[in-house]
Amino acid sequence: MAPIKLGMVGGGNDAFIGGVHRIASRIDGRFDLVAGALSSTEEKSKASGAALGLAPDRCYGDFIEMAKRETRLKDGIEAVAIVTPNHVHYAAAREFLKRGIHVICDKPLTSTLADAKKLVTAAEKSDAMFILTHNYTGYPMIRQARAMVEEGAIGQIRVVQAEYPQDWLTTPLESEGLKQAEWRTDPERSGVGGCVGDIGTHAYNLASFVTGLKLQSLAADLTAFVPGRRVDDNVHVMLRYEGGAKGMLWSSQVAPGNENALKLRVYGDKGGLEWSQEDPNYLWFTPHGQPKQLLTRNGSGAHEANQAASRIPPGHPEGYLEGFANIYSQAADLFVAARDGRVPAHHLPTVHDGLDGVKFIDACVRSSQRDAAWIKLG
Amino acid sequence: MAPIKLGMVGGGNDAFIGGVHRIASRIDGRFDLVAGALSSTEEKSKASGAALGLAPDRCYGDFIEMAKRETRLKDGIEAVAIVTPNHVHYAAAREFLKRGIHVICDKPLTSTLADAKKLVTAAEKSDAMFILTHNYTGYPMIRQARAMVEEGAIGQIRVVQAEYPQDWLTTPLESEGLKQAEWRTDPERSGVGGCVGDIGTHAYNLASFVTGLKLQSLAADLTAFVPGRRVDDNVHVMLRYEGGAKGMLWSSQVAPGNENALKLRVYGDKGGLEWSQEDPNYLWFTPHGQPKQLLTRNGSGAHEANQAASRIPPGHPEGYLEGFANIYSQAADLFVAARDGRVPAHHLPTVHDGLDGVKFIDACVRSSQRDAAWIKLG
Amino acid sequence: MAPIKLGMVGGGNDAFIGGVHRIASRIDGRFDLVAGALSSTEEKSKASGAALGLAPDRCYGDFIEMAKRETRLKDGIEAVAIVTPNHVHYAAAREFLKRGIHVICDKPLTSTLADAKKLVTAAEKSDAMFILTHNYTGYPMIRQARAMVEEGAIGQIRVVQAEYPQDWLTTPLESEGLKQAEWRTDPERSGVGGCVGDIGTHAYNLASFVTGLKLQSLAADLTAFVPGRRVDDNVHVMLRYEGGAKGMLWSSQVAPGNENALKLRVYGDKGGLEWSQEDPNYLWFTPHGQPKQLLTRNGSGAHEANQAASRIPPGHPEGYLEGFANIYSQAADLFVAARDGRVPAHHLPTVHDGLDGVKFIDACVRSSQRDAAWIKLG
Amino acid sequence: MAPIKLGMVGGGNDAFIGGVHRIASRIDGRFDLVAGALSSTEEKSKASGAALGLAPDRCYGDFIEMAKRETRLKDGIEAVAIVTPNHVHYAAAREFLKRGIHVICDKPLTSTLADAKKLVTAAEKSDAMFILTHNYTGYPMIRQARAMVEEGAIGQIRVVQAEYPQDWLTTPLESEGLKQAEWRTDPERSGVGGCVGDIGTHAYNLASFVTGLKLQSLAADLTAFVPGRRVDDNVHVMLRYEGGAKGMLWSSQVAPGNENALKLRVYGDKGGLEWSQEDPNYLWFTPHGQPKQLLTRNGSGAHEANQAASRIPPGHPEGYLEGFANIYSQAADLFVAARDGRVPAHHLPTVHDGLDGVKFIDACVRSSQRDAAWIKLG
Repeated sequence: MAPIKLGMVGGGNDAFIGGVHRIASRIDGRFDLVAGALSSTEEKSKASGAALGLAPDRCYGDFIEMAKRETRLKDGIEAVAIVTPNHVHYAAAREFLKRGIHVICDKPLTSTLADAKKLVTAAEKSDAMFILTHNYTGYPMIRQARAMVEEGAIGQIRVVQAEYPQDWLTTPLESEGLKQAEWRTDPERSGVGGCVGDIGTHAYNLASFVTGLKLQSLAADLTAFVPGRRVDDNVHVMLRYEGGAKGMLWSSQVAPGNENALKLRVYGDKGGLEWSQEDPNYLWFTPHGQPKQLLTRNGSGAHEANQAASRIPPGHPEGYLEGFANIYSQAADLFVAARDGRVPAHHLPTVHDGLDGVKFIDACVRSSQRDAAWIKLG
Repeated sequence: MAPIKLGMVGGGNDAFIGGVHRIASRIDGRFDLVAGALSSTEEKSKASGAALGLAPDRCYGDFIEMAKRETRLKDGIEAVAIVTPNHVHYAAAREFLKRGIHVICDKPLTSTLADAKKLVTAAEKSDAMFILTHNYTGYPMIRQARAMVEEGAIGQIRVVQAEYPQDWLTTPLESEGLKQAEWRTDPERSGVGGCVGDIGTHAYNLASFVTGLKLQSLAADLTAFVPGRRVDDNVHVMLRYEGGAKGMLWSSQVAPGNENALKLRVYGDKGGLEWSQEDPNYLWFTPHGQPKQLLTRNGSGAHEANQAASRIPPGHPEGYLEGFANIYSQAADLFVAARDGRVPAHHLPTVHDGLDGVKFIDACVRSSQRDAAWIKLG
Repeated sequence: MAPIKLGMVGGGNDAFIGGVHRIASRIDGRFDLVAGALSSTEEKSKASGAALGLAPDRCYGDFIEMAKRETRLKDGIEAVAIVTPNHVHYAAAREFLKRGIHVICDKPLTSTLADAKKLVTAAEKSDAMFILTHNYTGYPMIRQARAMVEEGAIGQIRVVQAEYPQDWLTTPLESEGLKQAEWRTDPERSGVGGCVGDIGTHAYNLASFVTGLKLQSLAADLTAFVPGRRVDDNVHVMLRYEGGAKGMLWSSQVAPGNENALKLRVYGDKGGLEWSQEDPNYLWFTPHGQPKQLLTRNGSGAHEANQAASRIPPGHPEGYLEGFANIYSQAADLFVAARDGRVPAHHLPTVHDGLDGVKFIDACVRSSQRDAAWIKLG
Repeated sequence: MAPIKLGMVGGGNDAFIGGVHRIASRIDGRFDLVAGALSSTEEKSKASGAALGLAPDRCYGDFIEMAKRETRLKDGIEAVAIVTPNHVHYAAAREFLKRGIHVICDKPLTSTLADAKKLVTAAEKSDAMFILTHNYTGYPMIRQARAMVEEGAIGQIRVVQAEYPQDWLTTPLESEGLKQAEWRTDPERSGVGGCVGDIGTHAYNLASFVTGLKLQSLAADLTAFVPGRRVDDNVHVMLRYEGGAKGMLWSSQVAPGNENALKLRVYGDKGGLEWSQEDPNYLWFTPHGQPKQLLTRNGSGAHEANQAASRIPPGHPEGYLEGFANIYSQAADLFVAARDGRVPAHHLPTVHDGLDGVKFIDACVRSSQRDAAWIKLG
């Protein structure tokens, strides 16, 4: 089966997430990166492209030019990965969607709620597909957790505890020239949410993905602890889900000792599930009143959903890049199916999940501005 | 040095916490249990007392009788342990305090805020001392954590994450005849708080003890998940401390897979500390920008405060009972000093910490009744 | 039930293990320490005894004098704890055994094989009982492990991996005035084995206790790594059990990062069990082909043997002292039963286990001297 | 930089390790798989090749044919990955080496010591390079461990504890039609060692890689526990290194609860290092007398050797495939350098490490046949 021809917007030298997307697209051999608007000028874009082995004439200084020309090429790209700072997502995605090129876009969906809504419309109008890389949903044990919840293994859910602490912004790196810190703490490029948009939204999305619950309302207390920081760096949220479940969400970028300590714990009236991103090949399952079980990736008793997302035997850890690659490779399955117009049902994050995430960010910011008042999710 | 002569109110057959207090009092050989009003009738009290080797004439059916008679005895008790359900704490403590007998009382201080305030007055008027068994403050690694915070090891505190989940009340045990579940879910005996009073207050106290921070206000969302339950069994709280630190507290009795998973995480601008009660001999310390360190009880680099609370070499775990015994044995030191009227400064929980805890419970309940409005702590 | 009147030989100031025995004897209130030959002179013994609240006339400078006089007293001791360096065990135990006083003795049984055999004879001739404090066998999860093996939970045992590394003797502390290091590295007091006698024998005993297997032969490579050390500080042994199981044992006192990392892993044709002394409230159980289960002390699905050795609810850790106390308190049960001449079957370590341990030490030393030749256990 | 053109011998449908090699070669985009003798017949080879997107005329039924034809092609392969069962390694490698095509070969080097020696000669005669995929040496924390040892962080090494237990062969899968089990337990295809060759050699190699120590002699006790099994499934070895360090090695395929629990612990006179393959992003480091430190992949204080082998930030786990890919990508660096005849010094496993591993297997088998007699390594 021929690989999907892929373009990339953003992801030039110095970018972190672009490299991740490229590896994820390669792991299962399902994509060929053939074009890019990798940087903001043609010169830089060609330099970055050369290092990646792209043909010079397919390195663009502008995503509109790229969208136009690739559409006309006989062997033009079938899909594009958008890995720019958040404020560019909408404008870029729109250009490709309207030309029938599938979009794989980094999260959060957009930097504003208005853009998010427009992007939903653009995606709905398009024949092409839109996939959002909420990559943590690609981990095999998360797939198993979701399947177990669906099948009733823990009964009716009561309590959801989600958290995503980091420590890298404990000091004001944004004023010390670190590019990653600069744009992520700049409301113009990142959006009104800082930590809440960068990682809080991952925790929120993961909880939604695993539990299948819909958030009804939230009360949030956002803080910028580092002097001079223009966006929040610590996020406390209380959650109320439709149907009565309650939750808490904590994300922070000023918690020393936490690298990427995303963690999800879900408790129902029949059992509990606990998972930690830093040790992703394990899932703790406690059927109430029985001993805890340590479920493993592709291990004894692994759910089909876990096996389907695994490449190698248990005990040989798969990590972040493989989980990310699961998003890409399943997107490739969808894109191949779309060639014949037959897109199957799937669990990959869509533009609607993206809108949901931006609504979450927006609600957190508004709640916090009103002293943590409860805000209903629309 | 002669052991302190100890009496006990409550703690007859079937009680859980009475046995714990007795072991804690014995471990270091600092107390002799010589009298008790162990049960609500003289007959039951004598039966329970006989099993414990008490003389029949020092087994009372009534704590007032016990307080009166023991005061008159030449070898009467010097201290009393009160281990009844919460609603009895005040009335019992008052009788001993006014007669100059030291009180060691289980938490929470009382079942109502009014009682708590009266008990503070009673303690202040008394020559005797009042010690509250917030036993988790007796763990050596918690002593080290407090000392490190005081000495600035993690800088100015920004974020406090406290949690205490359990799972034993996932089903309605209180309607299945389990005594421990019955009184703890009965507002008449337990107080207005269920889970928040039983264990939330432990988490709150521990955070206060380690950080030295004073709570300014809170917003709480309390839930009774189990049908028919008369008090909360899940507690979500957002915390704001004086000076600007923020926190979250979660306690639950319906989280399958959690036995007594009390956990405290504190983050400052220079580092972080993390501790878990189920593995109490470890304390994680991360100086920001350096590798995590696993500090151990009495181990290499142990703080003096850690060593002082340890009995045996590192790697030979001390547990819950030893932490509890630290409260008792240090109380014994104080009681001995008090014989000469010289009571040194100490960190043991007092009646004021008890009042603070009851205020916390009261504020949580009121906040929750008002849809998680912010409540100032008085 | 009146406590057992207990004497102690050894355990004066500066001693480590004496204090442990005293706490262990107190935890469940089953013993009263009333007499002692705590030190090698009457003066020191009285000083140590005074600190422990012993009557001066029951503090002896000599264990023979103590044995003689206590036998004549109306309220004389019923049992004695022997907590001296190893080379004194035999001579002391003999004096009490021949006078019908029960002995609780620290391990290893003796410093020489000849003494061990004489002690077995002395114990067999005596009406009194002899209990050896292989204290790790008192841990609740070890009790459960043994019971599970007996009941076939892991099938026929194939592989036994036992280890006990420490790090405290990484440097030559014995030449820096540390008493604990001095006698433990002195062959005159410790016996021919250093590390193998001090902790290797614990690992060996634990493996025997849990598996019920009898060692057939061993090949050992003992090393003294620290320059000038007179006994081994690292022990490598290959084990062959009767019936075909194989094993390995490693113990070391020069392994930085290990405090008391005793660990036992046992694998059969139906499953596996894994336990670590530093986290003693857990036992990993894997039925082959199913997920791992984390069994806990007194927790969901706890075996009766686990519950019987537990005092408090799961999640409130019990530790080293409680495991040690289980040996003492069950010995008290036996001593009480012995008053009526009815001693029930039990699993406490006896003089025969002690002889077995000394044979193990002796065989390791002989094997190592012969370049790790296989030595049959007699 | 143009990717290296790669061929593959073995790795058709049903093979496990072939797929791993392909992913590893793709992750960093350094190789293009363009040819293969994937199966033993041309028909099967073409079928497997088609699924991988290979041109039909570059799918061969025979590795000799492939070596000959690819040498003549203008765009023929520059390197070949050999991923067959062990007994084919030598014959296949020889054909490519003698034609100047680089070889990346799975371990163990060969199924016999005679073949291993001949392969060394073949490699030495060749202008091409020979890289052995002892893939665990590619993990970033292992690179850091090696660098720390070299720099003296733990001082002079005394004790090495290596182990690699699995459980998948607890039952006789080889008689139930599982291909992976069939050839790995067949001495004709696997070699005289079963477990010792399959995984024991990994543990041995890892210990050598990290410590830099050379093995002087060993004493091994190999067992086939599963009835009817023709090779060992459990391996116990005592190790003596040149310079006086001692070690133990355990590997097993019948230890329920162990997936791929490769673990290495190294202790010197100044500190200790501990690493576990199932949690590969962590390395425990204890400077003697100080608290343990938890070093992380690319984390705070990461060694340059760790950073150089990492792709993404700390806390986002990299796993088995990324470690494997490090071998491939660094081999690509060497192959590129070799185009100009300038091959830099490197730490990748070579044919000499392969011979060393086969000698280890051979010595273990001979020692075990002689009742675990000490065997000198030649």
